[in-house]
Amino acid sequence: MKAVQVFGYNEPVKMVDVPEPKIEAPTDVIIRVGGAGVCRTDLHILEGIWRQTVGDPKLPYTIGHENAGWVEEVGGGVTTLKRGDPVILHPQPSCGLCRACRAGNDMHCVNAYFPGLDGHPGGYAQYMKTSIRAVVPLAPGTDPVPLAPYADAGITAYHAVKKIAPESYPGSTVAVIGVGGLGHFAVQLLKVMTTAKVVAVDTTPERLDFARSIGADHGVPVGTDGGVKGVMEYSSGGADVVMDFVGEKGTPETSMAMLRKGGTYSIIGYGGTVAPTTLNMIFAELKIVGNLVGSYTDLAELMELAQQGRVHITSSTFPLASANDVLHDLDAGKIVGRAVLKPDQN
Amino acid sequence: MKAVQVFGYNEPVKMVDVPEPKIEAPTDVIIRVGGAGVCRTDLHILEGIWRQTVGDPKLPYTIGHENAGWVEEVGGGVTTLKRGDPVILHPQPSCGLCRACRAGNDMHCVNAYFPGLDGHPGGYAQYMKTSIRAVVPLAPGTDPVPLAPYADAGITAYHAVKKIAPESYPGSTVAVIGVGGLGHFAVQLLKVMTTAKVVAVDTTPERLDFARSIGADHGVPVGTDGGVKGVMEYSSGGADVVMDFVGEKGTPETSMAMLRKGGTYSIIGYGGTVAPTTLNMIFAELKIVGNLVGSYTDLAELMELAQQGRVHITSSTFPLASANDVLHDLDAGKIVGRAVLKPDQN
Amino acid sequence: MKAVQVFGYNEPVKMVDVPEPKIEAPTDVIIRVGGAGVCRTDLHILEGIWRQTVGDPKLPYTIGHENAGWVEEVGGGVTTLKRGDPVILHPQPSCGLCRACRAGNDMHCVNAYFPGLDGHPGGYAQYMKTSIRAVVPLAPGTDPVPLAPYADAGITAYHAVKKIAPESYPGSTVAVIGVGGLGHFAVQLLKVMTTAKVVAVDTTPERLDFARSIGADHGVPVGTDGGVKGVMEYSSGGADVVMDFVGEKGTPETSMAMLRKGGTYSIIGYGGTVAPTTLNMIFAELKIVGNLVGSYTDLAELMELAQQGRVHITSSTFPLASANDVLHDLDAGKIVGRAVLKPDQN
Amino acid sequence: MKAVQVFGYNEPVKMVDVPEPKIEAPTDVIIRVGGAGVCRTDLHILEGIWRQTVGDPKLPYTIGHENAGWVEEVGGGVTTLKRGDPVILHPQPSCGLCRACRAGNDMHCVNAYFPGLDGHPGGYAQYMKTSIRAVVPLAPGTDPVPLAPYADAGITAYHAVKKIAPESYPGSTVAVIGVGGLGHFAVQLLKVMTTAKVVAVDTTPERLDFARSIGADHGVPVGTDGGVKGVMEYSSGGADVVMDFVGEKGTPETSMAMLRKGGTYSIIGYGGTVAPTTLNMIFAELKIVGNLVGSYTDLAELMELAQQGRVHITSSTFPLASANDVLHDLDAGKIVGRAVLKPDQN
Repeated sequence: MKAVQVFGYNEPVKMVDVPEPKIEAPTDVIIRVGGAGVCRTDLHILEGIWRQTVGDPKLPYTIGHENAGWVEEVGGGVTTLKRGDPVILHPQPSCGLCRACRAGNDMHCVNAYFPGLDGHPGGYAQYMKTSIRAVVPLAPGTDPVPLAPYADAGITAYHAVKKIAPESYPGSTVAVIGVGGLGHFAVQLLKVMTTAKVVAVDTTPERLDFARSIGADHGVPVGTDGGVKGVMEYSSGGADVVMDFVGEKGTPETSMAMLRKGGTYSIIGYGGTVAPTTLNMIFAELKIVGNLVGSYTDLAELMELAQQGRVHITSSTFPLASANDVLHDLDAGKIVGRAVLKPDQN
Repeated sequence: MKAVQVFGYNEPVKMVDVPEPKIEAPTDVIIRVGGAGVCRTDLHILEGIWRQTVGDPKLPYTIGHENAGWVEEVGGGVTTLKRGDPVILHPQPSCGLCRACRAGNDMHCVNAYFPGLDGHPGGYAQYMKTSIRAVVPLAPGTDPVPLAPYADAGITAYHAVKKIAPESYPGSTVAVIGVGGLGHFAVQLLKVMTTAKVVAVDTTPERLDFARSIGADHGVPVGTDGGVKGVMEYSSGGADVVMDFVGEKGTPETSMAMLRKGGTYSIIGYGGTVAPTTLNMIFAELKIVGNLVGSYTDLAELMELAQQGRVHITSSTFPLASANDVLHDLDAGKIVGRAVLKPDQN
Repeated sequence: MKAVQVFGYNEPVKMVDVPEPKIEAPTDVIIRVGGAGVCRTDLHILEGIWRQTVGDPKLPYTIGHENAGWVEEVGGGVTTLKRGDPVILHPQPSCGLCRACRAGNDMHCVNAYFPGLDGHPGGYAQYMKTSIRAVVPLAPGTDPVPLAPYADAGITAYHAVKKIAPESYPGSTVAVIGVGGLGHFAVQLLKVMTTAKVVAVDTTPERLDFARSIGADHGVPVGTDGGVKGVMEYSSGGADVVMDFVGEKGTPETSMAMLRKGGTYSIIGYGGTVAPTTLNMIFAELKIVGNLVGSYTDLAELMELAQQGRVHITSSTFPLASANDVLHDLDAGKIVGRAVLKPDQN
Repeated sequence: MKAVQVFGYNEPVKMVDVPEPKIEAPTDVIIRVGGAGVCRTDLHILEGIWRQTVGDPKLPYTIGHENAGWVEEVGGGVTTLKRGDPVILHPQPSCGLCRACRAGNDMHCVNAYFPGLDGHPGGYAQYMKTSIRAVVPLAPGTDPVPLAPYADAGITAYHAVKKIAPESYPGSTVAVIGVGGLGHFAVQLLKVMTTAKVVAVDTTPERLDFARSIGADHGVPVGTDGGVKGVMEYSSGGADVVMDFVGEKGTPETSMAMLRKGGTYSIIGYGGTVAPTTLNMIFAELKIVGNLVGSYTDLAELMELAQQGRVHITSSTFPLASANDVLHDLDAGKIVGRAVLKPDQN
């Protein structure tokens, strides 16, 4: 089958022929990939910044961690799926036996692995293998292709919004820094899952108009102060929560600066450093919260909201063979919404 | 009456004669001070590091924010207290009308002030004025003098333990960095309020023995790595929570380094900076939580535990006139437990 | 001034001349009543069923516990209000000092009283006295008259929805039994404050149409089984939460019968008895939750949602002098939405 | 192998020879039974009161749902256990895939079954089969025999205490009705897991002495009023929580009568009916909570507390062949603590 693989850091990916995955464990599930989302993390993988964190995986390997498609074949222990069912995949198969799994924290499973990131083959391919614990069934007849971005971008935003939701109330303010792939989900989800006022902070009038069109109550341009003054004024003294989908290039500082006493800085984007004094942390009694991708249940809940039409996705589809071009466009800021690679269907 | 006041930064305090406080508002309460705790924050006030944060108060003023004593006189609207009742004071009188007060978050009251810190006269004096909202009655016949340190050191530790308690469970580990005035309350309270194993980290064998004598399950010397290796081993992979009562001199870095995935770094001591990368915050899904002093309800609950004999205090009493000596000894690390200044009783 | 008073149980109320209230305590606030909602509880007062529960109040007294208007005069300790400000009143003035008040549970204040219910004069009058702790300011220029029903019907629904909100999630179902004065707020608030699907159960097609028009996802007629079968089918096995705004005439039984395992029966209406076996309670691990009126903060949050246009009220206004007629119409089921009595304005 | 089976309702059980269980699914685990607790539910099974609730199981079948022992054999998918490991069994094998399992609510698993209760063979036998999802490993070298009662009595108490723990605080009161098999765990766990004062209510001075010896702060004899007056006085106005381990013969009424406003009635024992008026439920804003057995994680946490020596068990061991005598003695109130049946070891 065709698969797009990493052969070296800081060099282009290549589409090559590789063997199809085979059922081995009774809990295995093989998916015919319908769509694989192209994520900024893929760029970071190619830059090599994940290399040590995930154990220096052996090259080449197939990337792609944001996948949806149809069931192709299942192991002997799988009774709830059959060939042809449309599905979306949680990015990290988990064991179901450890304390984290039993608490619904799949991402902290002590036996988990991460296809497309840690060397296990991902979804930039015609087929990929996962486990029954990671497969979310979609409603019969659903086209899974355009939904792929929910598998990572979507649930990361969902997970982060769910974590801060208990801190919001009517009259509270949540600021969203960066209304891109993840942020545009967050704006919508904040309006569905909380009663807070949502203020978007971004670089251009067009992006702020987009934010308002999907539900933001107000938009503040980054300007010269990172939007601090605009958010402070709109919120009459500081946001209750700032969700930072950039996480670098000054946003950690400006995010902390626009918080109310007792407020929460929620980190989703990454790349920079956040460096408050301990005096500031205690005097304003602040909280800083890191967010990894969400859980299986988060993904199932998000797909329910999508099916109800309460959250929408902006995505475009490209052939798998164009992976390098799409990655390049993403890096250049030329992708609107989320790009999805679609393998040829046998 | 006699009062100890700040006349200038980085110079000794002076005991002087000042007028006694007078009832003005119907909610005023005047206390005959029995004991006023001497806190590291008093040293920081004299160094001037609070000066800007609290609005550059006019000098001289009376310090002392950790106070207990007896009711001397009450305003016309106060019906629940009478002269001679033993009481302990919440450090920050609050309005009772704002959203924070109505949620029990006295410390975020939008109308609060902070006697002994922001220029309002504190408790290094024979009498001080507070508000009915800040007065916690003690059981009849209680001697309030030795209890003064609960008013600030005690409730700060209580508040911080209460906030992390929901993250503990049987088999989890909480590390306590620094078993001094606040930390020695935290060790005891963790054993009463959670089911976690408690590991104390401190500089000397004597302090680790002390920690174990008051309930710590294990002690780890700071050594050359801040205790990281010892805590990682004891907790089989990282503490679920690290409570840092130092907050400077490298403890923010070592505290973060000894956390389990999904763990919480709880800041109580201050002076330094904590500077994780956003990648680390998201990949290990960490949380950083600042802690201010606790609420009125925290203080009332803590006094209940003290009366039940479930938490104990280590303190020594000194005459008010010796304030400078005691502050000096505190700075020099010569105070065991907590020092309490006791004014002459008229 | 004119006031409508209870002179005896099971007999008509009378409009009489009584002295205007006077400021006594520094925290007193006198309101010029703009509107006083007419509530089923007023009928229950006249039937005498509250008589023992609230200490057999001395007759006659002025009823009316759902009030809005303008500030007329304030006590010496009140600094945040001035004559003419539009306000809505929390029904129960509280002390601000007890544990319940400090936790935001105004309704469990150990020093509270209940004007219009326990013998203290209520709002069926030109003026009434309350305390600063019970006054919620409205946005400048707001007409308080039609908003009165939020003061009791509104916050009771808000409070009940807020309590069950953590049990809902995308794909869960909440059933609302009875879409009348309180229930019509609940349907709207469930859509704003939760991600659950809302199924309304009521007696007529018109009322189910009304429920759908304000946001219900589905309507089930009461029919011969209280709507049990319809809710079981819609929810694929039982509602996660049933909110019962009737509380008598069989609804406790049918509500319990339409719950999923682990579900919650939330009681708001009253009059009947709920009588599950303890075996049923443990085997299905059910919860039953009683709901009193909400807190001051609930009312402030609800008024914020109303001002944002996220919740709407259906009410009609009548002269104070027509109180008996309106009470009679309410009892006869002839009031659409909520009736509001409007005193003549001096 | 030998097994004790139910051949008919309201007739004695019989020890018979049956085939040993065999591994079928890759997740199967066969246990050599060390001890099987004898539970009041076994009496209820024989009385036939569970018959309809669990689908009228085909007779005969082996009972026993409170089991501990050693791993005998594992299926091909089980990698974390080996022959001879001491283990204790969660009573209900679960699927690990449904929403309930993913939230840690094993007992609401939509695919679960209940060996020893619903017709699947239980632990009154030399061997029994379960699933890897239900096996809690014990520390190496642990004797599992006397621990069996933790598997059901223990985790039911643990689960119920964990659910009410957030409602307790220093100064609050929890009443425990019935200090028998489950209640004696609850008294201990309340002191370990909460800061509440614990008042035990039971029939004899000996049982109240026993309650105090394991940590109860106070004991109240049932007397003629079910202990209501004694609890009201001790708690200065009502318990915050009443945990009822009887659930019949008047305890639902007396439990509700000793609650504070806002209090919670927690049901663990069963047999009777609880029948409050909806007026009482709303006016005092009460809560009623049913409790099923706890989750796998509850059992793992409880075994950690047991190993730390923070909770103790009172149990006696009897040969499997004496099952009828032991059941008879349990019914006659002659068992002290919990009885454990011990099969002959091959």
